[in-house]
Amino acid sequence: MAVIGIDAGGTKIAALVLHDDQVVERYRIPTDTTSAASVVDGLDEISSLLREKVASRGIEVEAVGVGAAGFVDYSNGVVTFSPNLPLRDTPLRDLLQKQCGIPVYLDNDANAAALAEARMGAGKDARFLVHLTLGTGIGGGIIIDGRVYRGALGAAAELGHMVIMDDGPPCTCGARGCLESLASGWSIAARVEELADKQVDSPLVDDYLKDPDNFGAEKVVKHADAGEEFALIILSEAGKHLGVGVGSLVNIFNPDVVTFSGGLLGAYHHMEQSMRLAAERISIPISRRHVRILAGTLGDEGGQIGAALLPSSQSVE
Amino acid sequence: MAVIGIDAGGTKIAALVLHDDQVVERYRIPTDTTSAASVVDGLDEISSLLREKVASRGIEVEAVGVGAAGFVDYSNGVVTFSPNLPLRDTPLRDLLQKQCGIPVYLDNDANAAALAEARMGAGKDARFLVHLTLGTGIGGGIIIDGRVYRGALGAAAELGHMVIMDDGPPCTCGARGCLESLASGWSIAARVEELADKQVDSPLVDDYLKDPDNFGAEKVVKHADAGEEFALIILSEAGKHLGVGVGSLVNIFNPDVVTFSGGLLGAYHHMEQSMRLAAERISIPISRRHVRILAGTLGDEGGQIGAALLPSSQSVE
Repeated sequence: MAVIGIDAGGTKIAALVLHDDQVVERYRIPTDTTSAASVVDGLDEISSLLREKVASRGIEVEAVGVGAAGFVDYSNGVVTFSPNLPLRDTPLRDLLQKQCGIPVYLDNDANAAALAEARMGAGKDARFLVHLTLGTGIGGGIIIDGRVYRGALGAAAELGHMVIMDDGPPCTCGARGCLESLASGWSIAARVEELADKQVDSPLVDDYLKDPDNFGAEKVVKHADAGEEFALIILSEAGKHLGVGVGSLVNIFNPDVVTFSGGLLGAYHHMEQSMRLAAERISIPISRRHVRILAGTLGDEGGQIGAALLPSSQSVE
Repeated sequence: MAVIGIDAGGTKIAALVLHDDQVVERYRIPTDTTSAASVVDGLDEISSLLREKVASRGIEVEAVGVGAAGFVDYSNGVVTFSPNLPLRDTPLRDLLQKQCGIPVYLDNDANAAALAEARMGAGKDARFLVHLTLGTGIGGGIIIDGRVYRGALGAAAELGHMVIMDDGPPCTCGARGCLESLASGWSIAARVEELADKQVDSPLVDDYLKDPDNFGAEKVVKHADAGEEFALIILSEAGKHLGVGVGSLVNIFNPDVVTFSGGLLGAYHHMEQSMRLAAERISIPISRRHVRILAGTLGDEGGQIGAALLPSSQSVE
């Protein structure tokens, strides 16, 4: 069975064809964020192109899986809200299916990434897996024996929006102290902004002040790699907060593994120690001794691979 | 099918016989907490007594279900740790089964209470249920379509030990800022102790100082019922913290219902408003609009009924 897996992000649409668990073709295009229709057109375009490419090799694509950044109502195939795509209560699944003419499966990108790590990545020997995508924001996925836990409406596993610090920093979701507000890419950049507001004297802050609008966590990682003290502290603290979330998730799920993916994995070596310490402090002994906490092994492609696995995976229900 | 359901607590062992979903007999005895053996003897005694009682009516008991307060390794039938019972890494299931001669099922008391509310109580029309037992401590249970989510080793759903306030008050588990350290019976009593340390002038504090060792949350509820200001504030704040936990759980599980049971439900009317406000502030729109948050309807007997339902329920796996 050949399935197209698409990771629909705010800057690019990346896609691949998965045929008998092998990636046989890849393509990516920039995202046209003009409107919901332009996003659907982009998804249709990349699907058509990949179908043609593999058809010449005698491979017929049977379905398209899409992982989209944002809150997804899986049961209805609707993106209810996306931080980076012009989608709001958009019935993306049915719109794309109408255009491309083969079955379409839609889920959020973190569920897709989780499914990929559980089936083909760091969690492939695990039955109970909790996955966190660490990028600009933080997403989550919960996989039980190859099935995705989606809850009543398919909106579950918003693990970035569990509150770990009551009355903590404001989050993009409107609440305060969410895991995402303390351990995501944007929150790491926000900590540098706070240092700048306090006029802290540091190369990190100088770098921020040069171009505040384009300052992201990847620059903090660069400074940390160079040994800059404040950058190291910020990443270590983000790691600690991440560990608080992980420890709580270990107590909630008693998982075999917790895995991570996403752009912020470039900072993992700066966050890992404080993350593990916090997670160990919080998790109860029986679950702590059992769980393995691991960086994912599928890299950037996890989201696309997971999207391609959606047609062959069920929900926990 | 007739099953004995036992709630094994630190002060009493309460049991009933469930026959075709009807409670046909009840009994309770004080808990002899001398040793693990004395606890097993108590469980065996109450089982024998109830079997004899219903046998005279032609009802044959086929199994015994036990819900025990503490961390339970369900897969091995072991109580790894209990705050109120002299059990530590105790193979309670096999010990009791050897004595009473019929199949024994062991789980923690909160999973049992959750199962009861999901099958016969406030959640009986729900597929995805999250349950919190609010007593001296806080326990949790996660039920999916009548099955119990237990995770890899049966230690899941320790919902009282999710951290909602990083570096918050110390918890009995050794961590800080767990939900239990901010919204349980013992934590409510601890808040009064803090007021006493600050020499706050209030009838609540006077009551505490009369007998600090025997001061529990039920006295705070009594003062709140009488309109005492500090008691009302303490319960309202505990409610807010509870709501932070509930809101996070709604984001994690996208459940149909969240239900509560336990002795602290006597304070529910003082906690409900702040709980709902906090839960609504935190939960994402799609899940918030869907979930119903409800007090359980089975009262004290929920734990026993749920224990009796263990033989006919599976794990999510």
